[in-house]
Amino acid sequence: MCRWAAYRGEPIYLEELVSSPAHSLIEQSHCATRAKTATNGDGFGIAWYGERPEPGRYRDILPAWSDCNLKSIARQIRSPLFLAHVRAATGGGTRRDNCHPFVHGVWSFMHNGQVADFEHLRRPLEMMLDDELYAARTGATDSELLFLLARQFGLARDPLAAMAEAISVVEQLAQRLGCRVLVRFTAAFSDGRTLYAVRYSTDDLAPTLYAAPMGGAGGYCLVSEPLNDDTEAWVEVPDGSAVVVGADGIDVRLFAPHGHCVAKDPELAAIVS
Amino acid sequence: MCRWAAYRGEPIYLEELVSSPAHSLIEQSHCATRAKTATNGDGFGIAWYGERPEPGRYRDILPAWSDCNLKSIARQIRSPLFLAHVRAATGGGTRRDNCHPFVHGVWSFMHNGQVADFEHLRRPLEMMLDDELYAARTGATDSELLFLLARQFGLARDPLAAMAEAISVVEQLAQRLGCRVLVRFTAAFSDGRTLYAVRYSTDDLAPTLYAAPMGGAGGYCLVSEPLNDDTEAWVEVPDGSAVVVGADGIDVRLFAPHGHCVAKDPELAAIVS
Amino acid sequence: MCRWAAYRGEPIYLEELVSSPAHSLIEQSHCATRAKTATNGDGFGIAWYGERPEPGRYRDILPAWSDCNLKSIARQIRSPLFLAHVRAATGGGTRRDNCHPFVHGVWSFMHNGQVADFEHLRRPLEMMLDDELYAARTGATDSELLFLLARQFGLARDPLAAMAEAISVVEQLAQRLGCRVLVRFTAAFSDGRTLYAVRYSTDDLAPTLYAAPMGGAGGYCLVSEPLNDDTEAWVEVPDGSAVVVGADGIDVRLFAPHGHCVAKDPELAAIVS
Amino acid sequence: MCRWAAYRGEPIYLEELVSSPAHSLIEQSHCATRAKTATNGDGFGIAWYGERPEPGRYRDILPAWSDCNLKSIARQIRSPLFLAHVRAATGGGTRRDNCHPFVHGVWSFMHNGQVADFEHLRRPLEMMLDDELYAARTGATDSELLFLLARQFGLARDPLAAMAEAISVVEQLAQRLGCRVLVRFTAAFSDGRTLYAVRYSTDDLAPTLYAAPMGGAGGYCLVSEPLNDDTEAWVEVPDGSAVVVGADGIDVRLFAPHGHCVAKDPELAAIVS
Repeated sequence: MCRWAAYRGEPIYLEELVSSPAHSLIEQSHCATRAKTATNGDGFGIAWYGERPEPGRYRDILPAWSDCNLKSIARQIRSPLFLAHVRAATGGGTRRDNCHPFVHGVWSFMHNGQVADFEHLRRPLEMMLDDELYAARTGATDSELLFLLARQFGLARDPLAAMAEAISVVEQLAQRLGCRVLVRFTAAFSDGRTLYAVRYSTDDLAPTLYAAPMGGAGGYCLVSEPLNDDTEAWVEVPDGSAVVVGADGIDVRLFAPHGHCVAKDPELAAIVS
Repeated sequence: MCRWAAYRGEPIYLEELVSSPAHSLIEQSHCATRAKTATNGDGFGIAWYGERPEPGRYRDILPAWSDCNLKSIARQIRSPLFLAHVRAATGGGTRRDNCHPFVHGVWSFMHNGQVADFEHLRRPLEMMLDDELYAARTGATDSELLFLLARQFGLARDPLAAMAEAISVVEQLAQRLGCRVLVRFTAAFSDGRTLYAVRYSTDDLAPTLYAAPMGGAGGYCLVSEPLNDDTEAWVEVPDGSAVVVGADGIDVRLFAPHGHCVAKDPELAAIVS
Repeated sequence: MCRWAAYRGEPIYLEELVSSPAHSLIEQSHCATRAKTATNGDGFGIAWYGERPEPGRYRDILPAWSDCNLKSIARQIRSPLFLAHVRAATGGGTRRDNCHPFVHGVWSFMHNGQVADFEHLRRPLEMMLDDELYAARTGATDSELLFLLARQFGLARDPLAAMAEAISVVEQLAQRLGCRVLVRFTAAFSDGRTLYAVRYSTDDLAPTLYAAPMGGAGGYCLVSEPLNDDTEAWVEVPDGSAVVVGADGIDVRLFAPHGHCVAKDPELAAIVS
Repeated sequence: MCRWAAYRGEPIYLEELVSSPAHSLIEQSHCATRAKTATNGDGFGIAWYGERPEPGRYRDILPAWSDCNLKSIARQIRSPLFLAHVRAATGGGTRRDNCHPFVHGVWSFMHNGQVADFEHLRRPLEMMLDDELYAARTGATDSELLFLLARQFGLARDPLAAMAEAISVVEQLAQRLGCRVLVRFTAAFSDGRTLYAVRYSTDDLAPTLYAAPMGGAGGYCLVSEPLNDDTEAWVEVPDGSAVVVGADGIDVRLFAPHGHCVAKDPELAAIVS
């Protein structure tokens, strides 16, 4: 289980999520309170959008709490859209290629969760990637593979449907191979314009996801767990939801991979806006 | 606060302390149970004596739990005397030079504890080192400095008296400079023949120290906290004690830096043998 | 292009190859003289056989010249059979999983050379691995893949024939796919009892390979380039040869992947013994 | 001997010095052509000024050529004033604290050169630092110490005079202690508004320094060696000079530590403007 935080809105310094808050992401790397593991010390990463279409990225294998580069970079860089992640490895060694966020073209992706029996699913799933995406896989995590599968299934065309299909394909394959059918998935991803997040689990025990306004008009922050004690500000996003933060503000939808239904739900939307 | 384990006896694989036990040192790097901090993820180190007078050493800045080199080396190397340490930094950045054990000539040293107000004491203490020891200081920790001070005060001649003087000098300096007078010190050190450990604190809140027989006739293991649930095997060494494990078995003495008294105490000795 | 050195004979300290000689492997990491690239600064590794069937291993991504752990370990460990490698990356990022030697079961392997158009061959070659070997692949190099293919083709049963088949399969696939057919391959590998080396290239421009007696009766050292200026001691092993160093001394054979011919050749054998 | 590049002018991407040019700084980390050592693989660093008074910094111990973070950050960040450095260690281990640029408050500093007999001068020079600067020293290099001494001697008040005094004090101390009197010093430093560089050597064999216009009106780049083959663009700055790049363009002065003379010299100034 990992912890992450993402932002879209007026440009703010990365440190406003990464290191400044009372329960900042760096603090959570040491003492997460709502995770299965309190320590998220197996590396970290940030991806931010600036003047280029593709994001910048910095990731490393040290615990976030002991990396001075991270503190300096997060204090210096302002961005209207960025992702930040601290890792607690479930599979895949501690190396840079296994640290989130993953980046492919203009897309970035980070994840908290797990795919049950991944060691049996990994190879047939990797077979589904076309050659370019197969070559783009540099790590060994289930997370990176889910991202590349979503790319395969049209992330650029219809982001939520592609992510739903990626999850659905994993579940169906697990069933067909007689593996445990279980995907726990709380992820954020972006193309540099819109920020997406999904909270979903096969067993309705999806890792937590919270949203709060931040950084002025129309800005939102999405996180694994709140960055401070302001309980009024943070709204928990329900299991089975997708969040979309764009130029028009925040939107929450039903997210159900089976049948690829990704419907708009006014009630859900009302929760966070 | 850190965790450590040391051994002297018939040659055993390092993994018998480092990775094999239920509550091995690597396990403690993630989930220490009797420490102020459960996570000891700021690097690790091992020093072992083999066929050379000086010890071999391997240390690195990753958490011990995620370093495959450590597992492979600990599984391969057998030694009659070795020290192993996982670090939770209190001061001094996460870099190899700040990882224990420290080595100087044939001596090795590792430490769990702290020197209060060290930032005010550091410079005058470094001034006390002669030029060779000043040049030998490559890190920034209070631990390494205590070790080099003990070297300065005759560690090779009378190990426990030198260590007592090092602690005493720190306490006296703190008093003279109006700093908080507080040294918490549970350390192990060796010249490759005898294994020494000290448990001491100015305020009688010294970090824990346990001893247990291990590895066959006359072998002993000294640890910050027990490596398994065999509560009968592990004896807690009282605050204000020094332990000496040599060719003649284990010995426990009173350790009182003030007045440099390091007396033999039959009652204490009876505890562990 | 990389540099490597391997030894089989009476136990000697690893430093006798790694750091002590005038032109030691660490020296070669900075200033190789017979390689396409003088600098081999993209990590290093050692694998040594001790009391266990499988080898110990230490590898890291720093240049060998600046790693104090390597110097200390090489000075401390004695072994009757070990491999040591410094890397100049041709493909595959600078990360531990891409550092040689690779280890699988009791087998170790290291390589200097290249597979032309590897980016096009990689995927179909990975497809040839059975599930266990596919899962065992943790890096991205052509070298590791050649090793795993040789495992697939019976390395434990007939080491040289399996290695010949691995190379042959790569060449045949390259031809079938219309890629450049070129394998340059100077490698050493071992099961802990016998040390094997191969010098081969599709285009007869194989990286160099030298042998010299070392470490007393029946001991031999195999290297990319000589470790010192004693030109009489070092014999260049010709292109298209396999070297076998076992309990009965050293043996050199013809090595020709096409047709899997790995014949004994008395003339070749006479070169080195 | 190291290599470095610095810029002041209209904001440009760091990659325009670091990775894009034919003979970029990353290229020079592998194949410097005008340095005593072709390889500068002992770490790297960048310090850039953005919206904060103090610079951001990223430095690490890998060779610059193999660090993907560096490429991504340099491609993303634009800055009107930045310093970039690749290191070939002469003394001080390969660790982040020994990587340039050094930063203290708003000041940044990087250096190519050496102080002869530094091991004998280090301690008395460190003694000259006041407590705050003594505590700020986190590495072991002569370079960092020269920077902190210049801070001690008024870098913020009169940058060139302070740097001259730092060098002068080193030379005088060497003489007094009977050491070899030799400082070779080609450095760049900045307070975020003005970029300074000095080329000086006790023996008139100072490491090279070049200047060229870059990045539009009034922008200048200062480097250890030219970033491309445009020989007309790059002017060699003579030994015994200081360069000042500010809002009013570039200025070159005589730099002579002895007597702290840092005179303006119209002839010198004419060289580069």
